[in-house]
Amino acid sequence: MPFVNIRITKEDATAEQKQELIKGVTDLLAKTLGKNPKTTFVIIDEVELDNWGIGGESVTELRKK
Amino acid sequence: MPFVNIRITKEDATAEQKQELIKGVTDLLAKTLGKNPKTTFVIIDEVELDNWGIGGESVTELRKK
Amino acid sequence: MPFVNIRITKEDATAEQKQELIKGVTDLLAKTLGKNPKTTFVIIDEVELDNWGIGGESVTELRKK
Amino acid sequence: MPFVNIRITKEDATAEQKQELIKGVTDLLAKTLGKNPKTTFVIIDEVELDNWGIGGESVTELRKK
Amino acid sequence: MPFVNIRITKEDATAEQKQELIKGVTDLLAKTLGKNPKTTFVIIDEVELDNWGIGGESVTELRKK
Amino acid sequence: MPFVNIRITKEDATAEQKQELIKGVTDLLAKTLGKNPKTTFVIIDEVELDNWGIGGESVTELRKK
Repeated sequence: MPFVNIRITKEDATAEQKQELIKGVTDLLAKTLGKNPKTTFVIIDEVELDNWGIGGESVTELRKK
Repeated sequence: MPFVNIRITKEDATAEQKQELIKGVTDLLAKTLGKNPKTTFVIIDEVELDNWGIGGESVTELRKK
Repeated sequence: MPFVNIRITKEDATAEQKQELIKGVTDLLAKTLGKNPKTTFVIIDEVELDNWGIGGESVTELRKK
Repeated sequence: MPFVNIRITKEDATAEQKQELIKGVTDLLAKTLGKNPKTTFVIIDEVELDNWGIGGESVTELRKK
Repeated sequence: MPFVNIRITKEDATAEQKQELIKGVTDLLAKTLGKNPKTTFVIIDEVELDNWGIGGESVTELRKK
Repeated sequence: MPFVNIRITKEDATAEQKQELIKGVTDLLAKTLGKNPKTTFVIIDEVELDNWGIGGESVTELRKK
């Protein structure tokens, strides 16, 4: 009964791509650890560029460079 | 000083229902473990149906069935 | 299909108390929002006193006062 | 390679203030623990007032008092 | 720069299996969304059976059935 | 009433260093956003090297290189 939380920047992920992520990570857990897909939860959080930082700078600032 | 994070699908929870959840889980922690309500934090995250998966499918897909 | 994460200080919660928390919050979500208990997940994290801070001090320091 | 998640109520934080938080916490981890800023991630979540509770009440309710 | 948090019950996952999970989910994000593997973070949390509940019961209780 | 979760690899952080992190991030939130230190929560999670991955490899593997 794994729980997976995927956080990505809010850009242009489509419903199809999110569906692919959900399917892919669920399959990965079944294949690698034998986890039951039926009780595998996946939540995707899309985070605004101003709200994500790396190297001390927001992604908004990094993208300007 | 417990911290509780409740994640639900973004549907139609009202402010009153969220208030009930906050009150209910705070009371539960006081009753069960003697935790001080004053320093009990609760955060509710509402997640889009495309962004939540179970059994390898997004809730959007599951609802179509 | 709610997901609940409860974080408490690592002290002396018994398996019975944790079971009570799990049952209580699952029932609360069913009663308040009509959520299906079968797909309600609860994870309890117990956090060391050195690793939890409030008011700028670790709980270890606060307990000395 | 630390990961920091800062959760605040959704009010009026500007892009500049969020940039300051990102820079500040990245510097703090470098200074205190020698962590490499280049691989320090910071995510800020802004939470609606109805969705945050303390002392058994939502912030929306608390602000009315 | 995705961040992935995988939570599984603490049972018998080996270092090799965890490495497989890390590699698999990093590849999935590169393939599905074109995310850069170099800045993809994965954290696996292993949760005690007493601390994970589903359907209102801890996994410890469920396993007895 | 901010909530901050800091995740670092489990290595050799002392209680004093953790206290410094807690104090530092609490002060940062007060200075940057005027947040009340009394209701600022900080939780530090220390993660095993096998359980943290970057660039598709666990930190355990990366450290061997």
